[in-house]
Amino acid sequence: MQININNQNEEKNEEEVEEENNHASELRQDIVTGDWVVIATGRAKRPDAFAKFERIKDDNGIDKCLFEDPVASGQEPDVLIYADKEGQWTLRVFPNKFPTVSQFAVMKPKPEGPYFSMPGVGFHELVVTRDHFKQLALMNVLEIAEVFDAYQDRYLDLMSKKNVNFIAIFHNHGKEAGASLSHPHSQIMAIPMIAPYPKQELDGAEMYYRSNKACVYCIMTEYESQFKKRIVFENEDFVAFCPYASRVAFEVWVVPKKHNPYFERITDEQKLKLAEVFSKALGAIYKALNDPPYNFYINTSPCDGKDYPHFHWHIEILPHTSIWAGFELETGIEISTIQPEVAAEYLRKQL
Amino acid sequence: MQININNQNEEKNEEEVEEENNHASELRQDIVTGDWVVIATGRAKRPDAFAKFERIKDDNGIDKCLFEDPVASGQEPDVLIYADKEGQWTLRVFPNKFPTVSQFAVMKPKPEGPYFSMPGVGFHELVVTRDHFKQLALMNVLEIAEVFDAYQDRYLDLMSKKNVNFIAIFHNHGKEAGASLSHPHSQIMAIPMIAPYPKQELDGAEMYYRSNKACVYCIMTEYESQFKKRIVFENEDFVAFCPYASRVAFEVWVVPKKHNPYFERITDEQKLKLAEVFSKALGAIYKALNDPPYNFYINTSPCDGKDYPHFHWHIEILPHTSIWAGFELETGIEISTIQPEVAAEYLRKQL
Repeated sequence: MQININNQNEEKNEEEVEEENNHASELRQDIVTGDWVVIATGRAKRPDAFAKFERIKDDNGIDKCLFEDPVASGQEPDVLIYADKEGQWTLRVFPNKFPTVSQFAVMKPKPEGPYFSMPGVGFHELVVTRDHFKQLALMNVLEIAEVFDAYQDRYLDLMSKKNVNFIAIFHNHGKEAGASLSHPHSQIMAIPMIAPYPKQELDGAEMYYRSNKACVYCIMTEYESQFKKRIVFENEDFVAFCPYASRVAFEVWVVPKKHNPYFERITDEQKLKLAEVFSKALGAIYKALNDPPYNFYINTSPCDGKDYPHFHWHIEILPHTSIWAGFELETGIEISTIQPEVAAEYLRKQL
Repeated sequence: MQININNQNEEKNEEEVEEENNHASELRQDIVTGDWVVIATGRAKRPDAFAKFERIKDDNGIDKCLFEDPVASGQEPDVLIYADKEGQWTLRVFPNKFPTVSQFAVMKPKPEGPYFSMPGVGFHELVVTRDHFKQLALMNVLEIAEVFDAYQDRYLDLMSKKNVNFIAIFHNHGKEAGASLSHPHSQIMAIPMIAPYPKQELDGAEMYYRSNKACVYCIMTEYESQFKKRIVFENEDFVAFCPYASRVAFEVWVVPKKHNPYFERITDEQKLKLAEVFSKALGAIYKALNDPPYNFYINTSPCDGKDYPHFHWHIEILPHTSIWAGFELETGIEISTIQPEVAAEYLRKQL
């Protein structure tokens, strides 16, 4: 039984409309992918409100840590070890014992009715730094540079392997952000296909180039450096900013100022510059949000033998400040409850 | 300093390869979108292992509940009320007091440098059922049918409004799944643009039709009904199954057996059949995972005045069993740690 009720959509005058517009949210378009995000200014929170969520206790305990002595704990043999002058290891890379993709799987498609599957072919490695308690946000520039060294070393080795056409390099910190072990570690996954998100960004960058005869990331980076309001930190070679169409609160991108499609071609000098900007950005997030869970990953061109002249490699840092709920899952449109300009200003205050 | 180490990529014999393939993961392709998911069988968990995670206590308390008496708590005026024979309300719909999109915003694009934004134009409504403690998984068929009645009533009213081209209908249960209030409520968001995920599915369904002269969802539904292994429950008109390329553990789709692009054209008779299958599916998830957080939403054609003859409306239920971590955020490829066939078998046991 439906009760008849008055229509509440009465006319509003222009002043009221302006007032409503101020409180309503803003839809911002990502100029690379064409996707939209909602900056829900109507439910906007103060920047310090994002720090207050409770963290899941996530230290598995150093005594039981599998990465304190990976050999003794039965991890796979190292594929890379860095050591200090005393010969003590500082960073090591070894295959994941429970790999999501395996180098020993065989590319054998398996049809089932109208469907289609393939064994998970590829390489899945772990990049582990020595100190159980020192997350990347607390590392100094040289320590961070060493991590990027390892990413590059492994990238260069994996990119030429059979069936490897795309390499994902990512880092999860905190249980809420998907880190199952608390000891700081990154992951490298080398897979046969170009994944859907990178594909969308590659296509978007190429389309932008065709229309504008310019790299979309170069345009963005130059504009942000002039506009200043979304900048967190920059030096001669890199800039960290909260992107215009941030998908999550306090999202930060670290982008090289000079056009370069390929992360693996970074020089040692650039790596130090990158490490400086990256550590400032991650450190600011750490302070602003009171040691939040976070993910970051490197967006770079595929390694499928083709050229990607219009892409521009960069790092995306996503603090875990929100949950994908029904609307995001249904639509793919993310809702952020702080303006990137406000987030950036608050991050700059932490420097 | 890099220490030279032995190459661990030694050759494996064929038996070992077969063994590895069995334990390695499976990449399954979504035949609508072309996206891939990873079914990580190597890290597979037993079905009952998914029930063991701790829930965040999420009852805000019935005394403070804003939806017990929406008028007294200052919610916006109702746009729809259902009542029982005694005139007591059983379900009501009213605009969200803190809307993500607002009917009073004006479509005025706002450029900024190379970027572009728009005010969040649209309608954002809440569908609230009476009983504070009775989540949808615990409702009987008639109660569920009433919820779908409300979805349809509001859809039919909103679809003809100015600037409304797509209507998202979704439900979040539990704090982990993004429900900020524990009182059972769904949300309806009517927006000007076709969102990216629905766009991908519409395009995929059309491409499939062009190649195969058949609706991809009809093909899937017929195959699943014959194959049986991924079915949770079915009646004459609807089928609930764990999709072949499940993105999360225990994902369930509820699909009409007869081709129909438009949810809003469902008949009262079909709604009862839908309610039966939906309540069986959600009830099985509730029991199997011990009252988990979940999201569900209706995937239906846009209401932009165009025809979408190749789409096929359906409901997707996503229990909140995993977190998007670095790999998912970077690539858009989701990792599920249980085979849909095993999940479906376990869900059938709960019926």
